[in-house]
Amino acid sequence: MGRMTLGPEDRTAAEALDARDPLAFARGRFSVPEGVVYLDGNSLGALPSGVRAAVLDAVDRQWGQDLIGSWNGNGWWTLPERVGDRIGALVGAAPGQTICGDSTSVQLFQALTAAARLRPDRRVLLTDAANFPTDQYLADAVARLLGLEARRVDPAALEVGPDVAVVALSAVDYRTGELWDVEEITRKAHAAGAVVVWDLCHAAGALPVDLDGLGADAAVGCTYKYLNGGPGAPAWLYLPRRHQQAADLPLTGWTGRADPFGLAGAYEPAEGVARARIGTPPVLSMVAVEAALDVWDGVDLAAVRAKSLALGDLLITMADGLREYGLTVVTPRAGARRGSQVSLRHEKAYELGQALITRGVVGDFRAPDLLRLGLAPLYLRYVDVWDAMHALAGILAANEHEAPRYRRDQTAVVT
Amino acid sequence: MGRMTLGPEDRTAAEALDARDPLAFARGRFSVPEGVVYLDGNSLGALPSGVRAAVLDAVDRQWGQDLIGSWNGNGWWTLPERVGDRIGALVGAAPGQTICGDSTSVQLFQALTAAARLRPDRRVLLTDAANFPTDQYLADAVARLLGLEARRVDPAALEVGPDVAVVALSAVDYRTGELWDVEEITRKAHAAGAVVVWDLCHAAGALPVDLDGLGADAAVGCTYKYLNGGPGAPAWLYLPRRHQQAADLPLTGWTGRADPFGLAGAYEPAEGVARARIGTPPVLSMVAVEAALDVWDGVDLAAVRAKSLALGDLLITMADGLREYGLTVVTPRAGARRGSQVSLRHEKAYELGQALITRGVVGDFRAPDLLRLGLAPLYLRYVDVWDAMHALAGILAANEHEAPRYRRDQTAVVT
Repeated sequence: MGRMTLGPEDRTAAEALDARDPLAFARGRFSVPEGVVYLDGNSLGALPSGVRAAVLDAVDRQWGQDLIGSWNGNGWWTLPERVGDRIGALVGAAPGQTICGDSTSVQLFQALTAAARLRPDRRVLLTDAANFPTDQYLADAVARLLGLEARRVDPAALEVGPDVAVVALSAVDYRTGELWDVEEITRKAHAAGAVVVWDLCHAAGALPVDLDGLGADAAVGCTYKYLNGGPGAPAWLYLPRRHQQAADLPLTGWTGRADPFGLAGAYEPAEGVARARIGTPPVLSMVAVEAALDVWDGVDLAAVRAKSLALGDLLITMADGLREYGLTVVTPRAGARRGSQVSLRHEKAYELGQALITRGVVGDFRAPDLLRLGLAPLYLRYVDVWDAMHALAGILAANEHEAPRYRRDQTAVVT
Repeated sequence: MGRMTLGPEDRTAAEALDARDPLAFARGRFSVPEGVVYLDGNSLGALPSGVRAAVLDAVDRQWGQDLIGSWNGNGWWTLPERVGDRIGALVGAAPGQTICGDSTSVQLFQALTAAARLRPDRRVLLTDAANFPTDQYLADAVARLLGLEARRVDPAALEVGPDVAVVALSAVDYRTGELWDVEEITRKAHAAGAVVVWDLCHAAGALPVDLDGLGADAAVGCTYKYLNGGPGAPAWLYLPRRHQQAADLPLTGWTGRADPFGLAGAYEPAEGVARARIGTPPVLSMVAVEAALDVWDGVDLAAVRAKSLALGDLLITMADGLREYGLTVVTPRAGARRGSQVSLRHEKAYELGQALITRGVVGDFRAPDLLRLGLAPLYLRYVDVWDAMHALAGILAANEHEAPRYRRDQTAVVT
């Protein structure tokens, strides 16, 4: 589709792009609020239309009527594997290698510990100095428990020495939207004998990922961003078949045990990815994720990626037109180095974000000076991007963001 | 109320007990299926009537309409502490010491690790050889990570040596329903310089617990049994104020950090119980728990306990009348040693449970020979117990359970 040259005067051109968008049908699978341009799907995805009925059925009929019988009768027991496989299909994982459950933090703890235990003779765990905080904290926590050293590195200048057990990085930088060269990093780590754990929170559902083809040793991700699973929805862990037998996971809950109903007093991991189950699965949240995944039926991730980049091109072009106001594009311009968000730097990024909300445009803010605009191609239209940037232009031109009501408070949710 | 002497001929006596039951009003707060006697509330509590509307609001309005703004605008961010405090009120914890989130397995891992780190000079972790499997597995997992030894003991014959760092037990044995002497065990452990972690899965909401008064060092529990939070609902962790500053928790997710939105790269725990937060909270499941806790408004836990024991007395009396069929009562007869379930032993316990289900009576089975009948006083009536035991008598007298259709399959859900 190439670089857009749309300026603020060209809404009809954006409309024309929507008219021939092969993914236009997908927006009808979501409940997007009227009058809102939602550019925060990289933090919390919009509500898929099918979730309501699925959750109501889980509450009223499955829980209310069938009660305990639902563990078998309504398939609650198999939710972690079932939902896991559907997520796996979106990140290039063949069935039987992905499990859904718990939070990303807990899954990172599992993945990092199991990964380090695959290289018991090595002492270093590498993580990105700009990685999402949880990734860094848990690298430190695991290193402490296992007697390792967690070192921060720059993924762009990665060197993997012979002492490195694990390279644990996020595919997409959550602040800048930069997409790392996942294949090259994986290759480099493997060449040095290390194992690789990928955090795909900002990649799953946003761009094609081929975990099996990549040879990743483990991966984790959330389901509440581009997978639209709902607020705080359960995360997932990918554990490739070749490592399953050896995977020595630290959180040994009863549902991950071989013969869990035998209730024996010593842990013995289940066969396959089921060993990555931990406690009783959170059914209501997981049923929501399962229903949310229906929006992917018949959707080609290559088309999602193409639209994501085209939306980003439009956004970047329009942002370039606002340089005179001190607005700069932080996200790499090259499509191959971009995730599915565009981050703009401005001294008053927080205030701009607030003023945008007043105009019905929802993005988010990352300290100290980033306005982060997420592009979820399943429900976002070209006119949405045009309208958002048009609103931003209007705010900047009129200095709307300098109004006292937009002054900064102490909290903003970030994920 | 004393020991019941009701026999199978006395349904009117059970009806009379219901007529003067001070908790009779509470059943109206649940959606209990017609024609079902539900004796499995110790595994999955029945559906509180208010959950449906709360979950629908969370899906439709909070997620669907307000989207990311709900983290602040609809109080999603404070759910772990808010729901935690309401659970705390039911287990004798003053506000600011209980957090809701994750699974019981994960909370046990947190509690056991933090507890052991309070006694860095001691090398032994004691757990019950008959404890729920997860409790034993995680005692082993934590011991391994910290270089300790996990030893199995019999809570009835507990000895705490000077090498013991942590005593970690369940208040109620999940199989037999035996209630341990929580005060005496805590006193004995403290006298030996150990810290105590209580698993209250089978106690919270079933009987009064006074965690603050007891001086427990930590406690965990689920919310899906007597707290009726729904299938796989988030668990909780109690971390008393006196330990919070020193509590060194292993799962360092970003939401438990001081200034979580500062997104700094090194972990520094938040003040207070907020340091026990881990990842992004599972909102849909936690909103369900919050609504479910409304059933406790105006409910006196002493009355709950009195009714629980009276229901148990009735059940035991009627079970004693079935001794000739090889049925024996496993649960202690003394009220002070009983939780809120009665376990019956029978060679054909599995088949009896299946035959009961056919008659609309839902209990559960624990291998190899226990029929476990849970007594949730908020929605269970005396006539329900009478009807259940009358059905059991009929099955045993007619040998209904010997029918081929009740033969045993491989799975049964246990928690």
